[in-house]
Amino acid sequence: MRKSTDPIGVFDSGIGGLTVVREIMRELPDESIIYFGDTARVPYGTKSKETIEKFAVEDVEFLLKFNVKIIVSACFTVSSNAMDVLRGKFNIPIFDMIEPGVRAVKRTGKRRIGIIGTYATIESRAYEKRIREEVPDAEIFTRPAPLFVPLAEEGKTRGKIAELVVEEYLKELKGRVEVLVLGCTHYPLLKETIKDFMEEVILVEPGKEVAGMLKEYLGKEGLLSSGPPRYSFYLSDIPRKFGEIGERFLGRKLEGIRVVREWIT
Amino acid sequence: MRKSTDPIGVFDSGIGGLTVVREIMRELPDESIIYFGDTARVPYGTKSKETIEKFAVEDVEFLLKFNVKIIVSACFTVSSNAMDVLRGKFNIPIFDMIEPGVRAVKRTGKRRIGIIGTYATIESRAYEKRIREEVPDAEIFTRPAPLFVPLAEEGKTRGKIAELVVEEYLKELKGRVEVLVLGCTHYPLLKETIKDFMEEVILVEPGKEVAGMLKEYLGKEGLLSSGPPRYSFYLSDIPRKFGEIGERFLGRKLEGIRVVREWIT
Repeated sequence: MRKSTDPIGVFDSGIGGLTVVREIMRELPDESIIYFGDTARVPYGTKSKETIEKFAVEDVEFLLKFNVKIIVSACFTVSSNAMDVLRGKFNIPIFDMIEPGVRAVKRTGKRRIGIIGTYATIESRAYEKRIREEVPDAEIFTRPAPLFVPLAEEGKTRGKIAELVVEEYLKELKGRVEVLVLGCTHYPLLKETIKDFMEEVILVEPGKEVAGMLKEYLGKEGLLSSGPPRYSFYLSDIPRKFGEIGERFLGRKLEGIRVVREWIT
Repeated sequence: MRKSTDPIGVFDSGIGGLTVVREIMRELPDESIIYFGDTARVPYGTKSKETIEKFAVEDVEFLLKFNVKIIVSACFTVSSNAMDVLRGKFNIPIFDMIEPGVRAVKRTGKRRIGIIGTYATIESRAYEKRIREEVPDAEIFTRPAPLFVPLAEEGKTRGKIAELVVEEYLKELKGRVEVLVLGCTHYPLLKETIKDFMEEVILVEPGKEVAGMLKEYLGKEGLLSSGPPRYSFYLSDIPRKFGEIGERFLGRKLEGIRVVREWIT
């Protein structure tokens, strides 16, 4: 039996999902959160569907040890490649990052839509398929933007290098799209540089939207917590420069971190 | 009992080690090679020493199934973080990428030495310590160059983005060093752009040197094979764009690839 005081479980391939946790903390300040980041095997976005599925199953199994009341796949690569496997295997409701993106796109009322993400996210066509169901006359333009991830991790989100990479990835979308889905946890960190280049295009951040959807869902199910919130962060490795990067992503001090090295065999 | 016809085992965190295999094939065309690339968990260079050690032990255990006569750690991150653990645990001779780099540096007769590599390689100070033993009056300048890896994997080794990143990482070394050690498997792919910026600086590629050292060692031990060579490539995942990247790194067609997904649990 799920209780309202049970935590929300959030997982990601690494620490990028902290940008989603940040939105959940803002929208649902009384909820407890257990985060798992698979930092020993990050990134997922260049890997095969089979490997992504296998890792995602292990990530969910880890979170299930903590009596979570709901799970959020903060990883866009998992959300677009492994949800069938996860939902087939586990009974707990699992929120992904595709539906929130689709919902936000639909609300704009626009039909010329751009999507950027990792190779695995773009190749899956998960966003494309769901947007076409909701916006039947949509014109969709997609582009993998793999270098945005290391740029965000290196803190190079402004300046000439970032501008050149943004231009290279987005020049073919510019002028064609009215809305651009930032389809990877790392991309909101490059938002200002992307906005400067894309000018009046509406940027969609599924991480912001998922927090609202969670709130609705928990309210409807009578599962909203009245606090106090507790936060735990589990990682399969403490990567180099972790403190610095993690706090940049979460937007606040990171405390209560545990490494679970024995979990990965 | 090791036989001359036994293969050479080479492992790496991913497919970067194919740049080392390429040099071994060139120098020792009659030798058989078994390659293992841990593409499911790549990269290692941003991860902790403990995780690198753990993964490296598993990589060697995998190669030992094939009766290899010798092992090469083509991964500079492993070579600078995990050799004590590997040599303490396994009896087989394991070549690393530090000694060949040190040997090549020493031969130049220069004393102002630059070293670039992943965070893990630079933070280990492995090159620095060994160079100081061999070149006691060396002046050593080091710099992590993490964005070189995704640039090489994306094929962005020439052009404005590559030039800007090279400038950013190397501007403080320029004018100070006479020799620059390319301390990561991926960096030789950026050699031309690095050379253009660093001008008359001597670039050291440990992968070239290790092939010569292997030849010497096998000759001395009576273990040189007279062929015919057989090549097998084992990977823990078939990553996206693998064919394209792998062949760019190896410099020839990649055949005989097997995935060993069950190995990683």
